[in-house]
Amino acid sequence: MYSELQNLDLKHIWHPCSQMKDYETFPPIVIERGEGVWLYDKQGNRYLDAVSSWWVNLFGHANPRISKAIADQAKKLEHVIFANFTHEPAIHVAKKLVDKTPDGLEKVFFADNGSSAIEVALKMSFQYRAQTGQPNKQRFLTFTNAYHGETLGALSVGAVDLYNKVFAPLLLNAVRAEGPNCYRCPFKEDPSTCDAPCALFVEEQFEKHADTLSAAIIEPLIQIAGGMNMYPPIFLKKLRSLCDKYDVHLIADEIAVGFGRTGTLFACEQADITPDFLCLSKGITGGYLPLSAVLTTNKIYYAFYDDYGTMKAFLHSHSYSGNPLALRAAQEVLSIFEEEQVLEKISVKANLLNKLAHEAFDSLPYVGEYRQTGFVGAIELVADKNSKTPFPSEERIGYQIYKRALKKGILLRPLGNILYFMPPYVISEEEIEWMVETAKQEIVEFFKEKRVGIR
Amino acid sequence: MYSELQNLDLKHIWHPCSQMKDYETFPPIVIERGEGVWLYDKQGNRYLDAVSSWWVNLFGHANPRISKAIADQAKKLEHVIFANFTHEPAIHVAKKLVDKTPDGLEKVFFADNGSSAIEVALKMSFQYRAQTGQPNKQRFLTFTNAYHGETLGALSVGAVDLYNKVFAPLLLNAVRAEGPNCYRCPFKEDPSTCDAPCALFVEEQFEKHADTLSAAIIEPLIQIAGGMNMYPPIFLKKLRSLCDKYDVHLIADEIAVGFGRTGTLFACEQADITPDFLCLSKGITGGYLPLSAVLTTNKIYYAFYDDYGTMKAFLHSHSYSGNPLALRAAQEVLSIFEEEQVLEKISVKANLLNKLAHEAFDSLPYVGEYRQTGFVGAIELVADKNSKTPFPSEERIGYQIYKRALKKGILLRPLGNILYFMPPYVISEEEIEWMVETAKQEIVEFFKEKRVGIR
Repeated sequence: MYSELQNLDLKHIWHPCSQMKDYETFPPIVIERGEGVWLYDKQGNRYLDAVSSWWVNLFGHANPRISKAIADQAKKLEHVIFANFTHEPAIHVAKKLVDKTPDGLEKVFFADNGSSAIEVALKMSFQYRAQTGQPNKQRFLTFTNAYHGETLGALSVGAVDLYNKVFAPLLLNAVRAEGPNCYRCPFKEDPSTCDAPCALFVEEQFEKHADTLSAAIIEPLIQIAGGMNMYPPIFLKKLRSLCDKYDVHLIADEIAVGFGRTGTLFACEQADITPDFLCLSKGITGGYLPLSAVLTTNKIYYAFYDDYGTMKAFLHSHSYSGNPLALRAAQEVLSIFEEEQVLEKISVKANLLNKLAHEAFDSLPYVGEYRQTGFVGAIELVADKNSKTPFPSEERIGYQIYKRALKKGILLRPLGNILYFMPPYVISEEEIEWMVETAKQEIVEFFKEKRVGIR
Repeated sequence: MYSELQNLDLKHIWHPCSQMKDYETFPPIVIERGEGVWLYDKQGNRYLDAVSSWWVNLFGHANPRISKAIADQAKKLEHVIFANFTHEPAIHVAKKLVDKTPDGLEKVFFADNGSSAIEVALKMSFQYRAQTGQPNKQRFLTFTNAYHGETLGALSVGAVDLYNKVFAPLLLNAVRAEGPNCYRCPFKEDPSTCDAPCALFVEEQFEKHADTLSAAIIEPLIQIAGGMNMYPPIFLKKLRSLCDKYDVHLIADEIAVGFGRTGTLFACEQADITPDFLCLSKGITGGYLPLSAVLTTNKIYYAFYDDYGTMKAFLHSHSYSGNPLALRAAQEVLSIFEEEQVLEKISVKANLLNKLAHEAFDSLPYVGEYRQTGFVGAIELVADKNSKTPFPSEERIGYQIYKRALKKGILLRPLGNILYFMPPYVISEEEIEWMVETAKQEIVEFFKEKRVGIR
């Protein structure tokens, strides 16, 4: 029996990233309130948000500091057109972002969501080439397993068939390079010590296509949607060098990995590189509101800076660009980072998670690998541990465990056969212990009940 | 002398839809607070927001009802993943939108901004064709002067060179039909009595391309960004019939014209049509927060509704899809419409604006036409009133008047040679009088000082 609200939901709402028929046997859960890592439904059941609601939440649900900041801002200035006008939260956040991101990123362009940020970076790179005598550099290079969003430009530089395939005739013809794949490394290297020999795959593509390439785009350190595919900083360092050598812009998509997720405030820091474009979103507002930012260099900026009549301006805009409410939330998020020793706390919690998770999962026969980067931990379930053979996607192994785990109070929405922990930073040590233990129980019970044969 | 905040802004922020070099002589105005139709800067100067901050604001800046609703929601639930989860503001808004939009629109898909809504509609239409045995229907039809947003898919169905031209190699090859152009009607018809003979231009394109057309997209009643180009409902009625005849989906982009702007809650009502997709954004949150919605029919919805393994799901998503804060604002906006006789009040104010503006502008030699639809009024400045010859765009006539008017306290950001009034609905009769009178003075003074020759 579904509740009246659930029935109304199903009557009127088409949910994102969902086969709605699944909802016939798996009703939408009506959340009433949130507090810390917990989401509470109308019946008073609670769920530990182990995925930070699609990787956006940093400091807990209904965080009092951020909620108060937004409430105060709403009384003063909810929004103003951002062409020729500005406001203090925007100026404050732009300055802080420039200060905190890698050296050389000097200008901030605001948009509303991650996909839009990617489109801004692609369009800026493209227009830069058109205005600097390189009109043949029109294409983009992306990596296997990449995911950069859902609008057609962003989707064009993605490489996850699940999202792209049906739309192929609408997409740009991006150059695809084989990216790092450490769990199934073709060179049989150990990512903690390797020299990223896989970078040669990129160089092969650059050698072939550099004349027509405007930019390469990558998710630094972790391809999140592409199955929590983690790789070492050395790959980024080599990619930056290759981009310099072949005159290809580097777009770093830190939409999911930025703001502390990988252990440093931004993932690029670990490779000590500065991209030409840095895309940020998700955690930028602490998980409160849609906002994104693209940071770039003065070199790029000044290629658009000229008398109006030269028609070199970047005319991209969204109505809500520079929204004061979202920027006030971002301002508070940056203050929390400064005032509450967030990175130090993440480090302690990440170490605990790493220890507990390896203890819990390493020995399970259907866990191919537990891997972790910063405060992102991933369990890759496999049909055969030796050959690393994945479960067929149609078995929906991850999805079934997710449904079970929800009944025990964990929101563990998977990526195919990958279950992962990416909780809000405010999770306590006890909650980490309970999260790992409960996830383990549900995985073990699932395989026991289903009697899935381990070959 | 720029203030410290202005210098910081220029050091770090790349503003949307701006040639940043213009800011050298026209500093960004730092807004401190808003109240009703007014924006107040740090020095205490105030500006009547005659463009509703890019057409988003409905009920005034820092509206107490909406601000309180957001503050309350932020204390309860700021956000939750919207796949398998839901919440009351989303359910409430979805139900109300289905109730208030044209009959036959039954399902609501949420996204974050207008461009994303357009991309959702294009992708849904395209995927529908792929899944219903019409794989050749892959293209989209759009109209001259159309504007639908800035991401590459949305830009592909736009037709304003200013935004598109440089990106042409990245865009889809849309079919362009000559759209209505009532001020310079090729049939010399009067839009208040005509039968939209210009619909034949669409039919010509449908005859040629219907086999490969998935959808046609249009801004009902007013092409806003394309120069406040207004046309009568009969054109929409004919377009709907043609779409039925040629099996082409109709996407209605009411992002800018929805929520009362044209005098009815939605513009499609005036033509008594139901589009296959209705895109909403901007005013949906009263101008507070980025949010968009795509409404569609059950016929479309059920073409995606099947067992998971058939891979027919629509997997588009944005992290902040279904954001509770934005939806709580939208809920309050819909309540204000219901409880405060908004449409009746708009009607009275629109009539006053229409009367005053015609009196003020009709006789001016460089005003080609004052035209108005609902509560959107536009002044088209021309170099020659008889031949309707436009001013050359490089003269930036509208921009210069905008800068002057700001000094008198009106924010009248133009579209090329078009100045327009699209104020928040809470504007008072006195404020309408002052706005029209001040705009007139500045236009008259500008042309007097510049001694622009009227041929």
